[in-house]
Amino acid sequence: MSTVSEAGRSQQGALSEITTEEIFAGHLGGKLSVELTAPLETQRDLSIAYTPGVAQVSRAIAADETLAKRYTWTDRLVVVVSDGSAVLGLGDIGARASLPVMEGKSALFKKFADLNSIPLVIDTKDPDAIVETLIRLRPSFGAVNLEDISAPRCFEIERRVIEALDCPVMHDDQHGTAIVVLAALNGAVKVQGRDVKDLKVVISGAGAAGVACANILLAAGVDDVVVLDSKGIVSRGRDGLNEFKADLAERTNPRQVTGGAAEALAGADVFLGVSAGTIGEELIASMAEGAIVFALSNPDPEIHPEVARRHAAIVATGRSDFPNQINNVLAFPGVFKGALDAGARRITEGMKIAAAEAILSVVGDELSADKIVPSPLDPRVAPAVAAAVAAAAHAEGVTG
Amino acid sequence: MSTVSEAGRSQQGALSEITTEEIFAGHLGGKLSVELTAPLETQRDLSIAYTPGVAQVSRAIAADETLAKRYTWTDRLVVVVSDGSAVLGLGDIGARASLPVMEGKSALFKKFADLNSIPLVIDTKDPDAIVETLIRLRPSFGAVNLEDISAPRCFEIERRVIEALDCPVMHDDQHGTAIVVLAALNGAVKVQGRDVKDLKVVISGAGAAGVACANILLAAGVDDVVVLDSKGIVSRGRDGLNEFKADLAERTNPRQVTGGAAEALAGADVFLGVSAGTIGEELIASMAEGAIVFALSNPDPEIHPEVARRHAAIVATGRSDFPNQINNVLAFPGVFKGALDAGARRITEGMKIAAAEAILSVVGDELSADKIVPSPLDPRVAPAVAAAVAAAAHAEGVTG
Repeated sequence: MSTVSEAGRSQQGALSEITTEEIFAGHLGGKLSVELTAPLETQRDLSIAYTPGVAQVSRAIAADETLAKRYTWTDRLVVVVSDGSAVLGLGDIGARASLPVMEGKSALFKKFADLNSIPLVIDTKDPDAIVETLIRLRPSFGAVNLEDISAPRCFEIERRVIEALDCPVMHDDQHGTAIVVLAALNGAVKVQGRDVKDLKVVISGAGAAGVACANILLAAGVDDVVVLDSKGIVSRGRDGLNEFKADLAERTNPRQVTGGAAEALAGADVFLGVSAGTIGEELIASMAEGAIVFALSNPDPEIHPEVARRHAAIVATGRSDFPNQINNVLAFPGVFKGALDAGARRITEGMKIAAAEAILSVVGDELSADKIVPSPLDPRVAPAVAAAVAAAAHAEGVTG
Repeated sequence: MSTVSEAGRSQQGALSEITTEEIFAGHLGGKLSVELTAPLETQRDLSIAYTPGVAQVSRAIAADETLAKRYTWTDRLVVVVSDGSAVLGLGDIGARASLPVMEGKSALFKKFADLNSIPLVIDTKDPDAIVETLIRLRPSFGAVNLEDISAPRCFEIERRVIEALDCPVMHDDQHGTAIVVLAALNGAVKVQGRDVKDLKVVISGAGAAGVACANILLAAGVDDVVVLDSKGIVSRGRDGLNEFKADLAERTNPRQVTGGAAEALAGADVFLGVSAGTIGEELIASMAEGAIVFALSNPDPEIHPEVARRHAAIVATGRSDFPNQINNVLAFPGVFKGALDAGARRITEGMKIAAAEAILSVVGDELSADKIVPSPLDPRVAPAVAAAVAAAAHAEGVTG
C-alpha cells in the first residue's frame, strides 16, 4: 500500500519542526483561562459586581428571566460537550482524555468568533444521561457544540438535545464537516464550470460526517449520492443496516448500485472520504474525467493527495500542508456566532447552507483548482459566515 | 423597630454613590470571559494546540488519566454550583436568577486566588439529580464550590458530593462563613485576653451557616453553644425538629436552656446572627459584660452596629461600611487554592481551622476591637490561607 506509507511519511513531515516536548509544553496547565471583564480592585467595584449590588440584578432576572441574556455571560457562552467516544481518529478514549481536544475547540471559538466557550465532558455514554445533564444545566449556557460523540448515538443525542433546548445546538462532526464540504464542492464545480446537480458523488464513511454530508448534498440538489461503509455500498435490502443507514439507503443510491468501492467509484465524479480507511490509486483512476477527490480522514488522508492528483482534477484534504484544507474551523465559529447574534432558537438547514455559501464567497477572485476554500486562518471567514447565518435565521423566523 | 429602620437607612448610605444604572451597566454581558493562555495565530500554533498535535496529549491521558491534571485546565478549575434555592437574602429565586451571584463568586476566585472558575447552575432542586450531575461532569473540573443551596438540603447534598468525588468540595455558605466567624471570634477574644473555651455563645439561625458555625465552634473547644431558630432555642425534646436540628440539639445547649432569644441571650458572651431576622436592643443589653456581637445578616444586620456598640465591647457585621467586616471572601479563595495546591482529595476540619488561624494571623499587630479580621481586599489573606490549608492537607495525609 504505497499510498499509506507515503501519507505516513508526509504526516511526519508536517510535524517535523514541532517536537513532542513543544506539544506537551503547549498544553501544560491547559489552554484556557477565565478572566474578569472589569476590575475588582476597590470596595466600590466589589459592591457593584458582588454584594450588595448584584442582588438588584438577580432580583431583576427573577422577575424577568429573559434579562439573563443581557446581564450574564451565558448568552455568548458555547459549551463544547463530549463523552470522548469518537475523538479525532483515536476512537473511544473517554471523557477525560478528550479534554485537550475540547479545550482546543473552545480556544478556536474565542479566537475566530470572540465567543466564550468551556469544555464540559460527561463521564457516561448513555444518551439519556447526556441529554438529561444538558437539560439540567440549560441556564448555564447559550449554545451547545456537541463534539466527538460516536455514531449512531450522535444522531439520537443531537436530535433529542435540539428538541429539549431552546438554543442553538449542533454536532460539529456532522454539520461543521458537511458545511465545509458543501462550500468546497461548490468551489470545485465553479472552477470547472459544472453544476453540483449533475455530479455522481461517492461518500466513503457512514458515520457522523458521512451521514451529514449525504444530507447536505441531497439538500443542495445532488441527486446521485452513493455511500460506502466498511461492508460496502449502503443499498436498499442490504442485511443488517441500522435505522440510520436504512434511512440513508432509502434516500441515496438512485441507480441501486451494489458491491464495494470499485463498483461505486467507477465513473464517479466526486470521491468524498470521511472514514479512517484508505482508497487505492487504481480506484481513483477509475473515476470520470475531471474527478474531484476530497480525502478528509485525519491525520492520514484516504489517499495521498499527490497520488490522487495524478488522476483527479481537484484534490482537497484535511491537512494544512497541502492545498485546499477542508477544516471545520471554517464553519463552526461563524455558525454559532451568527446564531447567537440573531438570538436563534435553533440552527436550521437553511442556516447551514447560508454558511457554506459565505465560506465560498470569501475566496472570491482567488478561486482556482488549488484554492476552492479559504485558509482556516483567514480572519474574514467567521464574520462572513456569522452575518450569513444570522440573516438566514431572521429570514427563517427562528429568532427571538 | 428603630434598629431596622436605622439599618435600612445605612444600607442606602452604603450604596448611595452607586446608581442602579451603574450596577446594571457593570453586569452587561456578564462578568467573566474565557481567554487563551497562548496565541493561536499561525498554522504552527494550531498544529500544537489543536490537530494534529493535540492527539499526542489526548493519547497520553488515555494511557494515564492522572496526566489530565497536568495537561488540562481542570486541575485549577473550581465550578461554582448552585440551584438558586437560597441566594443571598433573596431566597429561592431559581438557577437562572442566581447566575450574577455565581459569576461574581467565580470572579472572586480569579481575583484573590488566581484560580479559574465557572458557574454551573442546575435547573433542579432534587438532591439526587444535583449529585448525579456533578458525578457525570467530574472529569470537567478540579473542585466544587457549592453555593446558595437551601438548608437542610445543602447538608445532604454536600455530604453526598464529598463522598462521591475525589476532589475538594465545600459548601461555602456553611464552611466559608464558619471559618471567618472562627477567625473573628479568636481575634475578639485575643483583644479581650479571654479564651473561646469560656464563652457562652448564642447563634441565631439554624440554617447552613448556623449549623456550620456551631460545628466549627464546638470543634474549636467552645462548650456552651445555644442555637436559635425561628421557633426559639433548639433543645432536646423540642417537637418537630428535623434530623439536622435534632442532632444539633444533642451536641449543643449543655445548660438545657429553653425558650426564645431572651432566655438564650441573658448573660451570654457572644451573639452570632446568621439569620435574616432582627434582634432588639434590649436583648443585646441583657448580655454579659464585654459582649461580642456578630450581626452578619446581609444586607441588613440583625441589629444596627452602632446600636449594638452601646452595649457590646466588640461588634462585627457583613457590611463594608462598618468596622470588622466578616466576609466569606476572606476564606474561600485561599481554602480552594491551598487544597488544589496540595492536590487534596477533600477539605478536612483541620484544613478549615488552619484557614481560620491564617486569616487572623494576617491582622498581626493591628489587632484591636475595631480590627479583629483583615479587610476583604487585603491581598495577603488568600496566600496565607492557601499556605496554611496546603500544609494542613499534607499533615492530615489527604493529598496525592
